[in-house]
Amino acid sequence: MAFRFEIIKKDSSSKARLGRVETDHGAFATPAFLPVGTQGSVKSLTPEELVEMGVEAILGNTYHLYLRPGHETVGRLGGLHAFIHWEKPILTDSGGFQIFSLGSLRKISEEGVTFQSHLDGSSHFLTPEKVVEIQRILGTDIAMVLDECVPYPSPYEYVQASTERTSRWAGRCLQARRESDPALFAIVQGGIYRDLREKSIHALTEMGFQGYAIGGLSVGEPKSMMMDVVKWTTPLLPEEAPRYLMGVGTPEDMINAVMLGIDFFDCVLPTRNARNGTLFTSSGKISIKQAQYAEDGRPIDETCACYTCRHYSRAYLRHLYLSKEILSSRLNTIHNLYYYIKILVKMREATQESRLLDFYQSHISSRGLEETWAALSQSNG
Amino acid sequence: MAFRFEIIKKDSSSKARLGRVETDHGAFATPAFLPVGTQGSVKSLTPEELVEMGVEAILGNTYHLYLRPGHETVGRLGGLHAFIHWEKPILTDSGGFQIFSLGSLRKISEEGVTFQSHLDGSSHFLTPEKVVEIQRILGTDIAMVLDECVPYPSPYEYVQASTERTSRWAGRCLQARRESDPALFAIVQGGIYRDLREKSIHALTEMGFQGYAIGGLSVGEPKSMMMDVVKWTTPLLPEEAPRYLMGVGTPEDMINAVMLGIDFFDCVLPTRNARNGTLFTSSGKISIKQAQYAEDGRPIDETCACYTCRHYSRAYLRHLYLSKEILSSRLNTIHNLYYYIKILVKMREATQESRLLDFYQSHISSRGLEETWAALSQSNG
Repeated sequence: MAFRFEIIKKDSSSKARLGRVETDHGAFATPAFLPVGTQGSVKSLTPEELVEMGVEAILGNTYHLYLRPGHETVGRLGGLHAFIHWEKPILTDSGGFQIFSLGSLRKISEEGVTFQSHLDGSSHFLTPEKVVEIQRILGTDIAMVLDECVPYPSPYEYVQASTERTSRWAGRCLQARRESDPALFAIVQGGIYRDLREKSIHALTEMGFQGYAIGGLSVGEPKSMMMDVVKWTTPLLPEEAPRYLMGVGTPEDMINAVMLGIDFFDCVLPTRNARNGTLFTSSGKISIKQAQYAEDGRPIDETCACYTCRHYSRAYLRHLYLSKEILSSRLNTIHNLYYYIKILVKMREATQESRLLDFYQSHISSRGLEETWAALSQSNG
Repeated sequence: MAFRFEIIKKDSSSKARLGRVETDHGAFATPAFLPVGTQGSVKSLTPEELVEMGVEAILGNTYHLYLRPGHETVGRLGGLHAFIHWEKPILTDSGGFQIFSLGSLRKISEEGVTFQSHLDGSSHFLTPEKVVEIQRILGTDIAMVLDECVPYPSPYEYVQASTERTSRWAGRCLQARRESDPALFAIVQGGIYRDLREKSIHALTEMGFQGYAIGGLSVGEPKSMMMDVVKWTTPLLPEEAPRYLMGVGTPEDMINAVMLGIDFFDCVLPTRNARNGTLFTSSGKISIKQAQYAEDGRPIDETCACYTCRHYSRAYLRHLYLSKEILSSRLNTIHNLYYYIKILVKMREATQESRLLDFYQSHISSRGLEETWAALSQSNG
């Protein structure tokens, strides 16, 4: 499958890059946020709604789709794009994160990982080669290698052994990859240990992948530590390949990471928060269930142009939330995803117009985040 | 508020009428099916989706909206239409059905009904006058009188006393109604007793309402008995007023009732069935969870032009259902409501073109319902 990454402009005030990814299912601009469609659906939304808000690529999950409905089934039905009615690019996570979240339900060996399905307890064995095959059959545009996502905190020795194995697995994925397969991205691990992160990058870049992800972050470590890892690792990654920060994060995490040179993000935060009634606004987060919104006729955010803000009041959204109406999840998800997507759009525009630092300063001051960020950037120092 | 009902054409082969209702929020064609938006949302859908499938009027519920968010709140936020972003006509059920479903949680007197909220156990007292006031404040287009929906089976004496009280309550609603209020519809009760139904109609038509509903059906009585009641009562209702069969029913119930002279329907069946994975098709109902659909790449119904059938396979819909994805409820609801709405559209067209009987025969034969219907029409005499 075709895959091409082009850097259109580099920011002079930071390490941000404006780019473009081309795939057989079309192109998308970077930096990009990919909404999470774990089981073949970005929860509560249709593809048309995603396109309307400016989404250009989404994420699917190999582990979930392998277990249900099964990659063979998806393949027989024409592949993941046809199955879920999404014609634009798809990146599939390998499932490493999900499998390693299973705890005692999985057992790791050099060959691969044995685990029990969270659905029915059935036993499965996944190898690096199998994960490449599953993603080939799904017909994704960007496939991820099988990795072990190491929990935080973990002792140095464990992280070292695991990271070395993840690198060996990455090599096996690369060996198993066919010319016609999806693009294959490696995943940098190493926990919070700088030398292990560096060794991981060294091993992976020597093999040569089409893109590099930074994994094993946003797993409970302090935020300043997460940003430290991004700061150490990003400059060591090949300039010409896309860099993907997995499972991150808040809008501010994304802004920070873009300025450190990251190109893609995915995170369940906007969609999960939406279903829990937590909504992002240009003056900070709000919890729509609060009594103060009972008769609030204003939209979630008066500066927002999303479908939800154009038509519905906070009072109605609170009512839908309290009434457990399905429409509550939909309207809240539309707003939160739009908020995320628009931040990336604004960052791309600001980079194009050489005013990214202005965007950054105006974003944090409108949300009263100056102090938090000062502390964070000091620790990053 | 303006209200006008016009009969455009009467069918020669049956008692069906093609009509048109005009309100301050626009007109709708009859016979009509009104999707149920109990708590201010037709479950899972946006108003735009309803309009796209041809919905011209919806139903809200006075009891639910009175309890949450409260009619005063809705009134302060500009009324129900503005609150829920639905600009077309709304009919609000009075809440009689819901209150009388509460069983031991309610107590009835001549003055009104005391009940405990199903939400928080708080105590409430509703009178006919209060119900008119609530619907005025909600700003509905068509209001219903407070009635007692008598369960099946109930002894004659109880139904008699209850029906007489429902008629007295209807009179009090009429007294409380102001010139500028929504149109007010009375509700015919009387259980399965023909003389009580006749007395109810006599009492209500003497007072004179803008429309008449047949209530107390689809509460557990045999289907042939329900159709008998429709058959007895409909001819006694004023020709020039709209006739509304409450809470009914299956597509075949609606077709039968239209041919007996009914103009509106509401029912949770298409929306509730959708959420439970039961889907209507032109060759009968299917349960999407069944294993036989696991790799079925066909749409729910190859003859259907709804959004769901245009883009998704049975296999994907089964996957969404089994995965408990919110999109499952949405896509299934779109299909089932479209199916209902299209039946009414086809009946109106057939009436206009004087071929309603052909429509009826082709509908039942394509679904293999000849025997069921023969039995039913025999019992109907």
